[in-house]
Amino acid sequence: MKPAVVLLSGGLDSATTLAIARAEGYDCHCLSVDYGQRHVAELAAAERVADSQGARDRRVIHLDMNQFGGSALTDVSIAVPTGGVQPGIPVTYVPARNAIMLSLALAWAEVLGARDIFVGVNAVDYSGYPDCRPEFIRAFEAMANLATKAAVEGHRLAIHAPLIDLSKADIIRKGRDLGVDYGLTVSCYQADAEGQACGACDSCRLRREGFASAGVADPTRYRPR
Amino acid sequence: MKPAVVLLSGGLDSATTLAIARAEGYDCHCLSVDYGQRHVAELAAAERVADSQGARDRRVIHLDMNQFGGSALTDVSIAVPTGGVQPGIPVTYVPARNAIMLSLALAWAEVLGARDIFVGVNAVDYSGYPDCRPEFIRAFEAMANLATKAAVEGHRLAIHAPLIDLSKADIIRKGRDLGVDYGLTVSCYQADAEGQACGACDSCRLRREGFASAGVADPTRYRPR
Repeated sequence: MKPAVVLLSGGLDSATTLAIARAEGYDCHCLSVDYGQRHVAELAAAERVADSQGARDRRVIHLDMNQFGGSALTDVSIAVPTGGVQPGIPVTYVPARNAIMLSLALAWAEVLGARDIFVGVNAVDYSGYPDCRPEFIRAFEAMANLATKAAVEGHRLAIHAPLIDLSKADIIRKGRDLGVDYGLTVSCYQADAEGQACGACDSCRLRREGFASAGVADPTRYRPR
Repeated sequence: MKPAVVLLSGGLDSATTLAIARAEGYDCHCLSVDYGQRHVAELAAAERVADSQGARDRRVIHLDMNQFGGSALTDVSIAVPTGGVQPGIPVTYVPARNAIMLSLALAWAEVLGARDIFVGVNAVDYSGYPDCRPEFIRAFEAMANLATKAAVEGHRLAIHAPLIDLSKADIIRKGRDLGVDYGLTVSCYQADAEGQACGACDSCRLRREGFASAGVADPTRYRPR
C-alpha cells in the first residue's frame, strides 16, 4: 500500500476524505493540527475517526496560531456568526490556515516518503474561504513540487482534494456508501467539550442541510438551546 | 510606513534581510519560529537583532516539527556533518521548512494587512536546499496570492527574497553598509547555549568564507575546540 498523509480535522469533510483515500488503497497517516481553535473538541473527534477507519498513524501538531488572531475561530473576542450563511468571506476564516496545514502535511509526507496528500476542502457548500478553491489547491501543488527534496529528485507530489466539486449532500452520500460513521465527527465552530453542536453556525447549517438534502439521518448531537 | 513581515531566524542572512527591508522603508514585524531546532540559540539572536534594528514587533511561534524528524536540525540522533560542504541535499535540510515558515508569515501578514513578506533565502553560497531556489519563491508567491482574503479582494502579496542571487560576501558587504552588527547573529547549526559556533558545520563554513571573501572582520564567537 502506498503511504499518504491525510489532513484530518475531525469534521465531516475530512472523515469522508480519509474514507476515500483508504478506498483508493492508501496507507493513511493522519495529521491534525491543534492551532488554538475554539472548537478543540474536533481533535478528539479526529482521533475517533482515525481509529474507526483503520488509519496507520496519527499525529497532532501544536501551533499557537491564536498569537495572530484575526478569526472568530482563533480569537475568543470575535463571536461566531449564527444568523445564517452570508455572502463574502466570514469572520470564521482563519488566515492562511490551509497553506499552513498543507505545508505541515508536506513536511510529514517528505519524511515518510509519501507522494500523496489528501485534504477535504470543498468549494460548493462552503463558507467562501479563499483557500478552499481549486485554483489554490493547484497552486499549492505546484509550489510543493518545487519546495522539497522529492521534487528535486524527480518525483511528483500530488495534492488530492476529492471533495472539491461535490455538494455537501454528495459528500454525505459518498461517505455513507464507504461506511463513514458521521456520529463520530464534529463540524460545529463552537462545539462544546463533549462535541455537542450549536446548530446555528455556518458549519452546522451547511452540515444539517447536507444531511436533509442527501436523505440521510443526521447523527449530530446538538446541545439543548 | 508600510507594514511588512520579516522572517528572522537570527542568522546572518535574515539579519541582513531585515536591514534591507528597513532601508526600503518598511515597518518590520519580525517572525521567528521555535520549531525544535538544535540551534535554539538562534532565537535569542533573533531577539537581539530585532531590537538592534528597530523592528516594530516580534513574535515567536512554537511548532513541534521534531515530531516529524528527518533532519539533523530537528532529530538529535542525526549528526550535523562537519566535514565540509558536499554536493546534493545535506541531512541538515528540514523538510518543507520554508513553505511552513512562509505560510506562517502569510497568516500574520494577512492579519496585519501587510502585503509584503521578506525572507533571507539565498541560492548562491547555500547548502543546496530545494526551498531556497528562486523558482520555489515564485511558486510560493503565486500560491499566496490565491490563498488569502487579500488576494480575493484584488490586492497583491509580494514575497521579497533580496539575497537570492547574492554571494555570501555580497550579503556581508551589503549588511555592513547598512550597519548590521553581525556579532549579534548566530548561524551555526550546533551553536551552544551561549550562541558560540562550532566552526565546522556547513553554515559556519559558508559564513566564515563569506567574511574572508568580503574582507570584513569576522565577529563570530567560536567555541574552543
